[in-house]
Amino acid sequence: MTTAKKRLKSGMGSSTAGRITVRGHDLVEDLIGKVSLGDMAFLELKGRLPSREESTVFNALAVTLVEHGMTPSAIATRLTYFGAPESMQGAVAAGLLGIGDRFGGSVEEAARTLQEALEGEDSSPNVAALARQVVAAHKEKKRPIAGLGHPIHRPIDPRTPKLFAIAAANGFSGRFVELMEAISAEAGRSYGRDLPVNATGAIGAIASELEIPWRVTRGLAVMARAIGLVAHVQEELQEPLAAEIWSRIDEESSSQ
Amino acid sequence: MTTAKKRLKSGMGSSTAGRITVRGHDLVEDLIGKVSLGDMAFLELKGRLPSREESTVFNALAVTLVEHGMTPSAIATRLTYFGAPESMQGAVAAGLLGIGDRFGGSVEEAARTLQEALEGEDSSPNVAALARQVVAAHKEKKRPIAGLGHPIHRPIDPRTPKLFAIAAANGFSGRFVELMEAISAEAGRSYGRDLPVNATGAIGAIASELEIPWRVTRGLAVMARAIGLVAHVQEELQEPLAAEIWSRIDEESSSQ
Amino acid sequence: MTTAKKRLKSGMGSSTAGRITVRGHDLVEDLIGKVSLGDMAFLELKGRLPSREESTVFNALAVTLVEHGMTPSAIATRLTYFGAPESMQGAVAAGLLGIGDRFGGSVEEAARTLQEALEGEDSSPNVAALARQVVAAHKEKKRPIAGLGHPIHRPIDPRTPKLFAIAAANGFSGRFVELMEAISAEAGRSYGRDLPVNATGAIGAIASELEIPWRVTRGLAVMARAIGLVAHVQEELQEPLAAEIWSRIDEESSSQ
Amino acid sequence: MTTAKKRLKSGMGSSTAGRITVRGHDLVEDLIGKVSLGDMAFLELKGRLPSREESTVFNALAVTLVEHGMTPSAIATRLTYFGAPESMQGAVAAGLLGIGDRFGGSVEEAARTLQEALEGEDSSPNVAALARQVVAAHKEKKRPIAGLGHPIHRPIDPRTPKLFAIAAANGFSGRFVELMEAISAEAGRSYGRDLPVNATGAIGAIASELEIPWRVTRGLAVMARAIGLVAHVQEELQEPLAAEIWSRIDEESSSQ
Repeated sequence: MTTAKKRLKSGMGSSTAGRITVRGHDLVEDLIGKVSLGDMAFLELKGRLPSREESTVFNALAVTLVEHGMTPSAIATRLTYFGAPESMQGAVAAGLLGIGDRFGGSVEEAARTLQEALEGEDSSPNVAALARQVVAAHKEKKRPIAGLGHPIHRPIDPRTPKLFAIAAANGFSGRFVELMEAISAEAGRSYGRDLPVNATGAIGAIASELEIPWRVTRGLAVMARAIGLVAHVQEELQEPLAAEIWSRIDEESSSQ
Repeated sequence: MTTAKKRLKSGMGSSTAGRITVRGHDLVEDLIGKVSLGDMAFLELKGRLPSREESTVFNALAVTLVEHGMTPSAIATRLTYFGAPESMQGAVAAGLLGIGDRFGGSVEEAARTLQEALEGEDSSPNVAALARQVVAAHKEKKRPIAGLGHPIHRPIDPRTPKLFAIAAANGFSGRFVELMEAISAEAGRSYGRDLPVNATGAIGAIASELEIPWRVTRGLAVMARAIGLVAHVQEELQEPLAAEIWSRIDEESSSQ
Repeated sequence: MTTAKKRLKSGMGSSTAGRITVRGHDLVEDLIGKVSLGDMAFLELKGRLPSREESTVFNALAVTLVEHGMTPSAIATRLTYFGAPESMQGAVAAGLLGIGDRFGGSVEEAARTLQEALEGEDSSPNVAALARQVVAAHKEKKRPIAGLGHPIHRPIDPRTPKLFAIAAANGFSGRFVELMEAISAEAGRSYGRDLPVNATGAIGAIASELEIPWRVTRGLAVMARAIGLVAHVQEELQEPLAAEIWSRIDEESSSQ
Repeated sequence: MTTAKKRLKSGMGSSTAGRITVRGHDLVEDLIGKVSLGDMAFLELKGRLPSREESTVFNALAVTLVEHGMTPSAIATRLTYFGAPESMQGAVAAGLLGIGDRFGGSVEEAARTLQEALEGEDSSPNVAALARQVVAAHKEKKRPIAGLGHPIHRPIDPRTPKLFAIAAANGFSGRFVELMEAISAEAGRSYGRDLPVNATGAIGAIASELEIPWRVTRGLAVMARAIGLVAHVQEELQEPLAAEIWSRIDEESSSQ
């Protein structure tokens, strides 16, 4: 059987003997030594380098996501490195696998809520009405609204006002941020308790201002956390905790 | 049985209701909006923020490692995303798992060779003599020397002079870079063919100048490539290639 | 802050100096040399050893899922092993990461459809009515029904009659199998084309007869495929294909 | 550039509309319902179905490796599932990533030691002399000998005599088992303390009797443990421990 084949075509990067191209830029001439890692990440995702304002905002989002202390991901990375010290990449991968619906997924879910609500709206949407629709729809399905509230950071998540201030100062506080804040206010009224925007809500809103598709926003957490997990491997190398963690859990869980 | 327990103590990060600390810095006051993602990575690994010169050099290394086109890692990420579109983190993790001895490992191996050769040496080592020892030791064991030569980038890897120039301009061209270049020269004489320093050799040498332990250098590739793999997932979302890749390989490999 | 701690309690396994217990059985006295790997898997999942009939049916399901040739998972495993030959576990893990919604997920989705439809029904449910409801609900949401049809195996998937025959011969062809077949018939009428039960539909139905919760059924594919992926690593060790796969895809995808 | 392409050829499996072939066997006619999961694994690795004796021995090895209670791998799987409940395959993959040099690697290392020592030997090797060489070589490099001793199972690992008895009763107690026992005796003399063969030593020796290449033996642990990790996910689904594990570790590690 002969089938017409689809072309395999990628615009990510290519190489010849003397030249390496990444997203249309000459890696050696235009990127190495000229752009920072965060701006390179922006280029990878958007296909162009950021403006100064975009760079400030994008780097702020990414920096927020790098390190959260001894999370389930960090513990999984350390336990994996203990068992497989030959494979740092495996330890980091194990930690990244936990950046799913519960963690990275909340950024994605917040961005999705905002992007779907504003899809097809013109430039001056009725944000209050959209917020009421979002809250009502979640209430009806008894689903929590992503991006609101926090178990530890009370009364407010200190990252949120900072991120929103940076977005505003750089021209990225538009209708997505406005809708996120309106949803928070409406949810507070509807549920009768404070539900301030948390860091993942702020990141989901600001990533939407940067026109990052919601399906890709989880990737912001994945790329940033990869940095943090490499650093956890380094600390584990220098001051190992995995054996003690294992010992405590095994001892108690297997006692009769 | 009561055993004295080791303390579980990490210096990576911690949180209270109003404050998040990362590596001793207040995340909200000192980092978000003030440092770039690359400088945050430096902080994570070194425990302090970089000088301007360190920042330039460190970001140059990381930027070099982000994107290499349609590598085995990128293909694995795309095929995994095809099978498990619910889990972007799984697709990125699958790609990172290939950053092992053959790829990320070459940076590590180059850094190891340099750091072990210079361990215990004083500030003015006999670099030529050390290079001869390194080449002789590899020749005796019939092992290739990491960081030399390249199958595609000939006669030289264009990233190498760029990276060495940036290192020199910022005060990070010391004895590790000198030794790497001496090993290249000595290997060329010994094997009778040009064996110029490639990008992984340059990165291994410059990471050593930044005092990053060789066991951690593979992590530079892992963290940088995580960014690239997220971007490959995004391209796969927009223009899927995985089904076509699968179809071609399956069709041929299973034909009798 | 002192918080009442939840007990960490697991019934999977425990060890003392002279005795290893797995799911309440003495590993050395009762399991090694006495039970097969498939029966051990049944014990792990069900907490008891299978009857002869359960063993036949459970092993048939698992055997069906082990090997599917050069799938996206197998290709990802081989490419990962190429990059990281130090870590066979990483190569197998990379392949398993693709057993998601598209592949393993179809067994899970079929089992979920059946288990949710029959939840709360008495021992003689109106299967035809339930089938109509299932088909109508999927049609309304424009969602495909898991477990029906196959792109290659036409007119029927040869595994299905075999699996259903084994289930029937061993007393495991009950209301879940009946409903799966009724859904196939109803879907055929409703969509006006043959939609026979495929292997994942048969496995989802029979796993439900074995009272395996639908959330766990994806695990049948994961555990079985792990075996297959180890074998692909072995073939890759002996006759490497990864470099050629990479070369072809890279060459074409990066050409202008 | 036109390059002669290598053929992509795999003998693992293939499909046509009406027939699925695995390792040369018709899946539906010859395997489903006729062979157990363990025998299917043997077929995958060896290319042929096992004899009754091979089946007994191979299944005994695999059964031994399925479940070890609350290991670092099992904890990593549970923590990952907590963060990413949408991806059971990711949770199992995270656990498998810890089956590296420290755990699965010990089976591999034991098998390697035996297979390399006996390579090129005729059918009646001088086992005592080989054991002395092995012990002396490890002592000189100050490397521990894989497969000897155990931190918990003292004075002996109860799995070892069981596995060796099964191997002997089925005709698989040959020169590899003999050499493993001789190494244990010689190491005991040389180090002046009991160093009995542990389970990984026994498995490495018996896998060598089954002519499984040492590079593949780690895969026995990987495939068996995949089963155990699926069962840990199921227990975690029913009685979650991950949040409590996280809470305890985070609380202590981040306290000042």
